[in-house]
Amino acid sequence: MYDSSALFVFTAGDSGEWSIDAVHPVCGATLPAAPRLAVTNGSPGRSAGANWELFGFTSNMRYTERDEHSAMAARPAALGRPAATRAALIPISKSAAWWAMAQNERRAVFEAQSHHIAIGLDYMPAVARRLHHCRDIGGAFDFLTWFEFAPEDTAAFDAMLVRLRATPEWGYVDHEVDIRLSRVAAA
Amino acid sequence: MYDSSALFVFTAGDSGEWSIDAVHPVCGATLPAAPRLAVTNGSPGRSAGANWELFGFTSNMRYTERDEHSAMAARPAALGRPAATRAALIPISKSAAWWAMAQNERRAVFEAQSHHIAIGLDYMPAVARRLHHCRDIGGAFDFLTWFEFAPEDTAAFDAMLVRLRATPEWGYVDHEVDIRLSRVAAA
Repeated sequence: MYDSSALFVFTAGDSGEWSIDAVHPVCGATLPAAPRLAVTNGSPGRSAGANWELFGFTSNMRYTERDEHSAMAARPAALGRPAATRAALIPISKSAAWWAMAQNERRAVFEAQSHHIAIGLDYMPAVARRLHHCRDIGGAFDFLTWFEFAPEDTAAFDAMLVRLRATPEWGYVDHEVDIRLSRVAAA
Repeated sequence: MYDSSALFVFTAGDSGEWSIDAVHPVCGATLPAAPRLAVTNGSPGRSAGANWELFGFTSNMRYTERDEHSAMAARPAALGRPAATRAALIPISKSAAWWAMAQNERRAVFEAQSHHIAIGLDYMPAVARRLHHCRDIGGAFDFLTWFEFAPEDTAAFDAMLVRLRATPEWGYVDHEVDIRLSRVAAA
């Protein structure tokens, strides 16, 4: 229906630059196993033989204030670094109670109570990330977050997830799957 | 690419429940004239013979705080009221400078400086509205707002637009078209 440079598509199947090492359902239903994941930019359209496909768009930041934005900009963490041969794709959905909150209420849970941005900053630039939105376009999840890091930073990445999942914000997460990947030669 | 109950499509052409009375370019390029406008819900797909088609999705409110949300809820203004036989479709885009701002900076311009919500409340429930987002899905505009009101409230609606267009927020609007319509029998 549209072609947009903001749209990213995650296709699980027999091809793709990433090997799927593990699929762990954190909360709610899991996703089927598949050998490879392809990450592409542009219009989705399910590839023949794909096991599943998820897509979402990048957007402006919805909660970040200026000082937080500046702190993040001071620790740039780019995707595609040669040493970052490990990745995680973590699709999540939040509950109706989350979406019923007003902007200031969601911001209060997100940062004042849960320190989401502050926790993420502790792991930058070792962990690079890109957030994709999909609730508004009828996706099976609300958000897809893609992370890349070096193998030696895997323990730090896991520690970050433990901290985030213990926050009040995560009380509103009602579906989460944790997919781990390793970069291989392009299929 | 997806079917979503949040997606609304505005198709200008020879059919539709609304007669297009005027198309006025407020800022930037206009849209071609057409006799009718159809408003549909679901997947877009350009109709044969359509002059143009715009689409966007409804979403959670991005700036509204709890007290403002409550004030709006106290003055419910539903679309589809039989007496509301006039409508306006106002597509706008905002500048790169707007989108480069952090959430707290955009909120400050939107409400503290421009009183966008407070101005809108002054015209509720006479003017009903629905906001659609399209920047994230590669639309020609960032937002499409649909308004419905009774013929006798047209002057009030125009006065609301004069107030909004005089705000600091509108300094960031770099494309705006004002399309006026009247309800006719379904074509």
